Amino acid sequence: MKRAWIWTLLIGLLAGWSRADDQVESIRAIQDVLDRQARDWNRGDLDAFLDGYWNSPKVVFQSGGDRYEGWDAMRERYRRRYQAEGRSMGKVKFTGVEIEPLGKDSAYVRGRFELAMPDGSRPSGLFTLIFRRFPNGWKIVHDHTSSAEPKPLARQR
Amino acid sequence: MKRAWIWTLLIGLLAGWSRADDQVESIRAIQDVLDRQARDWNRGDLDAFLDGYWNSPKVVFQSGGDRYEGWDAMRERYRRRYQAEGRSMGKVKFTGVEIEPLGKDSAYVRGRFELAMPDGSRPSGLFTLIFRRFPNGWKIVHDHTSSAEPKPLARQR
Repeated sequence: MKRAWIWTLLIGLLAGWSRADDQVESIRAIQDVLDRQARDWNRGDLDAFLDGYWNSPKVVFQSGGDRYEGWDAMRERYRRRYQAEGRSMGKVKFTGVEIEPLGKDSAYVRGRFELAMPDGSRPSGLFTLIFRRFPNGWKIVHDHTSSAEPKPLARQR
Repeated sequence: MKRAWIWTLLIGLLAGWSRADDQVESIRAIQDVLDRQARDWNRGDLDAFLDGYWNSPKVVFQSGGDRYEGWDAMRERYRRRYQAEGRSMGKVKFTGVEIEPLGKDSAYVRGRFELAMPDGSRPSGLFTLIFRRFPNGWKIVHDHTSSAEPKPLARQR
């Protein structure tokens, strides 16, 4: 009987360690997806970049007041915005990325994107991503992106 | 030995049912928080509205290109935007709300907000919320909001 609490403590510690290990592993795997996305973007390979998303009619992309439902609608939006005549993908950088696991198979991620465009402009903004773990790896199931509009001086606070 | 698979099946079914029950219960509780927030907003009680958020320096609010860290910074942003001289909170409505549980103690929520302001304007936009279950109930730990800018005709797609 005296030993019971020792075993309870040990099992508790082991469970805690294993959970912490899971989290470290999840964070590393998600960081890998984001790093790969940035590399794919920066060599202009939009389809490789999109491989970071859940390929499903249920993936959702929200930007400003616009909502895109499903992988095809999201891809079309990216193509129109970054690959249409006279458009460019530029170079992207993700900064201030925070990866917060929610249980073993999901996580949310927030951070800032900064684009460097060939015309010298530097569009940037914030993102929130929901990741889920699938048999083929961690994928974004929901993306909310918003742009930092370059505000005219009079409108700045 | 023959019975083993039956027990496995039964336990599996029970676990599945119990998980589904948990999810229904989580969705209901989170919907309650959102309904309460809308009611609090609509009678101009900002602090009651803010009770839907995690009261922590770690809560994060992202809007456009701006990021607010901690409950105080978030509250200040709401006060400046909706309670300053000449400002109004208006009436809010949440539409198209989807609540997606991620495990037992967290969920993400997406939807649209529509404000009806006394001056007749109708600002609207999209939100993504991360909820976590705390001893004192479900709270928003991360909010990403973006506005549908009324675009001048020339800029519309």
